[in-house]
Amino acid sequence: MTDASTNMRLKLPITCFILEIIIIILFGVLVQYDEGTDAKLWHDRNHSSHSDYDNDFYYRYPSFQDVHVMIFIGFGFLMTFLQRYGFSSVGFNFLIAAFALQWATLMQGFFHGMHGGKIHIGVESMINADFCTGSVLISFGAVLGKTSPVQLLLMAIFEVTLFAVNEFIVLSVLGAKDAGGSMTIHTFGAYFGLIVARVLYRPNLDKSKHRNSSVYHSDLFAMIGTLYLWMFWPSFNSAITAHGDDQHRTAMNTYYSLAACTLSSYAMSALTAHDGKLDMVHIQNAALAGGVAAGTAGEMMLTPFGSMIVGFVAGIISVLGFKYLSPVLESKLKIQDTCGVHNLHGMPGILAASFKCLLVSVCVTSGFILKLPIFGAPPDTICFEDSIYWEVPEEETGHGNQLTTVRTEETEKLSS
Amino acid sequence: MTDASTNMRLKLPITCFILEIIIIILFGVLVQYDEGTDAKLWHDRNHSSHSDYDNDFYYRYPSFQDVHVMIFIGFGFLMTFLQRYGFSSVGFNFLIAAFALQWATLMQGFFHGMHGGKIHIGVESMINADFCTGSVLISFGAVLGKTSPVQLLLMAIFEVTLFAVNEFIVLSVLGAKDAGGSMTIHTFGAYFGLIVARVLYRPNLDKSKHRNSSVYHSDLFAMIGTLYLWMFWPSFNSAITAHGDDQHRTAMNTYYSLAACTLSSYAMSALTAHDGKLDMVHIQNAALAGGVAAGTAGEMMLTPFGSMIVGFVAGIISVLGFKYLSPVLESKLKIQDTCGVHNLHGMPGILAASFKCLLVSVCVTSGFILKLPIFGAPPDTICFEDSIYWEVPEEETGHGNQLTTVRTEETEKLSS
Amino acid sequence: MTDASTNMRLKLPITCFILEIIIIILFGVLVQYDEGTDAKLWHDRNHSSHSDYDNDFYYRYPSFQDVHVMIFIGFGFLMTFLQRYGFSSVGFNFLIAAFALQWATLMQGFFHGMHGGKIHIGVESMINADFCTGSVLISFGAVLGKTSPVQLLLMAIFEVTLFAVNEFIVLSVLGAKDAGGSMTIHTFGAYFGLIVARVLYRPNLDKSKHRNSSVYHSDLFAMIGTLYLWMFWPSFNSAITAHGDDQHRTAMNTYYSLAACTLSSYAMSALTAHDGKLDMVHIQNAALAGGVAAGTAGEMMLTPFGSMIVGFVAGIISVLGFKYLSPVLESKLKIQDTCGVHNLHGMPGILAASFKCLLVSVCVTSGFILKLPIFGAPPDTICFEDSIYWEVPEEETGHGNQLTTVRTEETEKLSS
Repeated sequence: MTDASTNMRLKLPITCFILEIIIIILFGVLVQYDEGTDAKLWHDRNHSSHSDYDNDFYYRYPSFQDVHVMIFIGFGFLMTFLQRYGFSSVGFNFLIAAFALQWATLMQGFFHGMHGGKIHIGVESMINADFCTGSVLISFGAVLGKTSPVQLLLMAIFEVTLFAVNEFIVLSVLGAKDAGGSMTIHTFGAYFGLIVARVLYRPNLDKSKHRNSSVYHSDLFAMIGTLYLWMFWPSFNSAITAHGDDQHRTAMNTYYSLAACTLSSYAMSALTAHDGKLDMVHIQNAALAGGVAAGTAGEMMLTPFGSMIVGFVAGIISVLGFKYLSPVLESKLKIQDTCGVHNLHGMPGILAASFKCLLVSVCVTSGFILKLPIFGAPPDTICFEDSIYWEVPEEETGHGNQLTTVRTEETEKLSS
Repeated sequence: MTDASTNMRLKLPITCFILEIIIIILFGVLVQYDEGTDAKLWHDRNHSSHSDYDNDFYYRYPSFQDVHVMIFIGFGFLMTFLQRYGFSSVGFNFLIAAFALQWATLMQGFFHGMHGGKIHIGVESMINADFCTGSVLISFGAVLGKTSPVQLLLMAIFEVTLFAVNEFIVLSVLGAKDAGGSMTIHTFGAYFGLIVARVLYRPNLDKSKHRNSSVYHSDLFAMIGTLYLWMFWPSFNSAITAHGDDQHRTAMNTYYSLAACTLSSYAMSALTAHDGKLDMVHIQNAALAGGVAAGTAGEMMLTPFGSMIVGFVAGIISVLGFKYLSPVLESKLKIQDTCGVHNLHGMPGILAASFKCLLVSVCVTSGFILKLPIFGAPPDTICFEDSIYWEVPEEETGHGNQLTTVRTEETEKLSS
Repeated sequence: MTDASTNMRLKLPITCFILEIIIIILFGVLVQYDEGTDAKLWHDRNHSSHSDYDNDFYYRYPSFQDVHVMIFIGFGFLMTFLQRYGFSSVGFNFLIAAFALQWATLMQGFFHGMHGGKIHIGVESMINADFCTGSVLISFGAVLGKTSPVQLLLMAIFEVTLFAVNEFIVLSVLGAKDAGGSMTIHTFGAYFGLIVARVLYRPNLDKSKHRNSSVYHSDLFAMIGTLYLWMFWPSFNSAITAHGDDQHRTAMNTYYSLAACTLSSYAMSALTAHDGKLDMVHIQNAALAGGVAAGTAGEMMLTPFGSMIVGFVAGIISVLGFKYLSPVLESKLKIQDTCGVHNLHGMPGILAASFKCLLVSVCVTSGFILKLPIFGAPPDTICFEDSIYWEVPEEETGHGNQLTTVRTEETEKLSS
């Protein structure tokens, strides 16, 4: 499966090299250690009253690592549910996340206060960069299987930049509180992705329909992603809240919101799915909606009681979205949302916020730029297929052919 | 594979909704933030001498997250070794854990001291709730493949309640020390599960025998579970010990106990298994027995020397149990212990304690209630099969059939 | 697939039991708790000015657990890429790591200062033991698929001992700084493994060539290993640096080095691989080179700018090594480096150091001892095959038989 238009031999290396060199130069010019990471600043400050054990590293880094696992393992494996798109799900997730966190360091530093013309970085900026990256990966979920890595890198440039602007408006200008980033991360990422998916609408996508589904072991790989997102969501929501009771409370509220959400997701899945059987898509996604929903208010004295109600409702809404809203989105609004990010990140996030409208036009622009034919997007006939961009072991291609043969026979039977 | 008696369309949603609504109401009435999570209490207390960095969150939360990973990834994936029961292993583990941790918060709060009629919660109660959940998941291992999700939720209600009573008796009334919960968690969970398995004995289970085994990749998935349990067991045993040297020492003792146990498990596996080859079942389970065995005394000045002897012996006993005791348990005592929890959690735990007898009658009662035909248990012919409760991707069913076809042909060849 | 020479029934148990019993005796005689883990020492010291919250456990244990995950999940799953060697990759990794960390505690304690004839242990010695274990696992990567577990345990004995000597020379005698262990861990482990692989050279290894490749899902399992190594490398490099700004800075430098390395690895992979498609081998390995390269200087005021340049170059070198150097190593130098550890750990580490030459002769000796025919190494025809040392589920053997059938035909053709 090779085609001149999807060939990445020059497009991907050139894009990566140019972006990375620009980033390195900007880091050289603009970026400095903050007082927690700079030897001189830390020891000057330390001289007076602080000990080395007071370094913020010890109070943020474990949360940072949990968030980091969510970004690379959580999002990466959540998307491996597709039968022939596992390399791309994990591998493109890896690439665009590694890029986005660097670009986010620059954009967030630029918009959230330079110090004497310099961006100061430490563990807190690393968490913020990972958060912004999360937003890009949510959008990736909406366009999964239909985009080339070059398109994804471009999308990341636009989205990270816009994310920093949006975050600045929501948090600094409007003064809103959004500890777990329901508004700035999830809702933003979901609707950005949906708008891009709309602009990239493919009327003939059903030609790739047989690949847009899971196989047994691909669903188990996806559960690795789901569970890491679920387990570490308390760390995500509490990672940059104020130290002390705030951080403690946020983590606990999220823990109970997720637990309640899991029960309502399973209930709704059995209720709505075929023959009363549970649907892996619901379990992999809806059970996480409680984390999104608890994101904005998690820091407050919400009480576990309040958190559980929020999570309970989020699970119900999310399953209903997968069941009834996603087909409508595709047929009426022409939005092909591969991972159903609208149901996991969009609606649960919207429970908390709706400041996004003014940014829509910019998103549309991004989508149209991505649509230019020069970025090597796959044709409709071979979406959701690793072998366009990856070397796939040979016997598997054979296996794929077998599957195709079986399916072709079935198709012939149906059409005869 | 659909059948009216195993159909979950109404049974599962009704059970989940009722349970979750009861829990939410009880949380609303009974549960409050503790002084580490309550804004007012913390800042009042803080006023005097404490800083925000003294919040127990920073000294317990990393251990909590390790335990959390053991509960959802460790136990969940450990049980994915069955060839056609991966969705259920991970998925039911997820469901009953999410339920059990909420119910445990209430039951443990109720038995371990109310404060002015209220249950106070924070990171320590979250760890305790996860511990109690671990006990339920151990029991799940014994009945794996033979129970419906509704039965499992019922089992969790009984077991969590009894767990809190047992914990109260062992720790408060008898005043025993049990940092890593060998007695309260592992031995209790194992024997509870075994008694339930005994009551649910299925004389015709060999009809599902061909499903009660692993395939190549299912064993690799199970190793993810094994390794997370193994790596984080030091955190499990030390998560709620006293701060300072106690917590430090407990983690280290467990680390060395597990290392010694791993060597003796591999040795015994090669010695007892077919042709001197290692058996994945032993590696996946026996290598963990050192963690259970070091649980009770881990906090004490056991010395690494003592820990390693305990772990070394536990590994030997556990492999011998899998090899020689499990078949006897099934044929003589009619206990069909799917995961061999007796060998991993039961016997190593019994090395430390035997306070469980007085609770046996209650367990038997639980088992008989679970046996009522209304909960949708699978028939003997289709145990260990995901497609009863899950939507399984279509081509996999085909793939399964192909395999079966091949096997049937082979069998015919052999018998002709 | 059973053969008297590879039969482990007695060889493996005897080796494990003897080694473990020796270790337990030596621990009994030589090892004591340090002041952070000993109840008496800690409380004596504590009496004066320290609180229980000052115990080093709280400032090292989260990093230790990240390193622990890298050792058991990271290295273990990184090597599961081979189609029929997953049990051995994860399982032998588990066995030799559990052994090596115990032996390393003794050897490092012995060479790095006894206290009154005793080795004092705590969380810092646990991290150091895991580091030394990492070195053994790197060497394992070079000989993967071609060695028996008994050979691997022997290799671990030699390598751990030599590692402690080398570490003593580099850090204590030469006084070099090497926070992340580029020199002492990665370069040492890589070249030790390469020399052993050279001595164990198999001229007829192409008989096992069809097994020395991946299948679709085995590559996804390997990505679990890659991502955990990538995510936790900042913890690896910072785990034993000085507290405060040093630890904070090291983690952050590594984070940016890895991000830059990922982009250059993807770029080089698309540029050099077939048809501009990405090669999983490069992604799984080269993207990690930035962690190795940032290991030595990461503690210093390298600046993120400097770290990113180092990572960027490391990614390029590593992919070029896989593409152009590995074939030369095999054809000219007769080094069959299964995992390409030279490209991931060797060259990136050599960027930082070249103190290894004087140790070469000792490594050669180790290799020759391993080559003795008594340790049950697999014959050339069945390298990279689990079923020599593991019970493999039956239907998979069926699958294997199919493969074997094809292969048998090939063999017949060859022999006729």
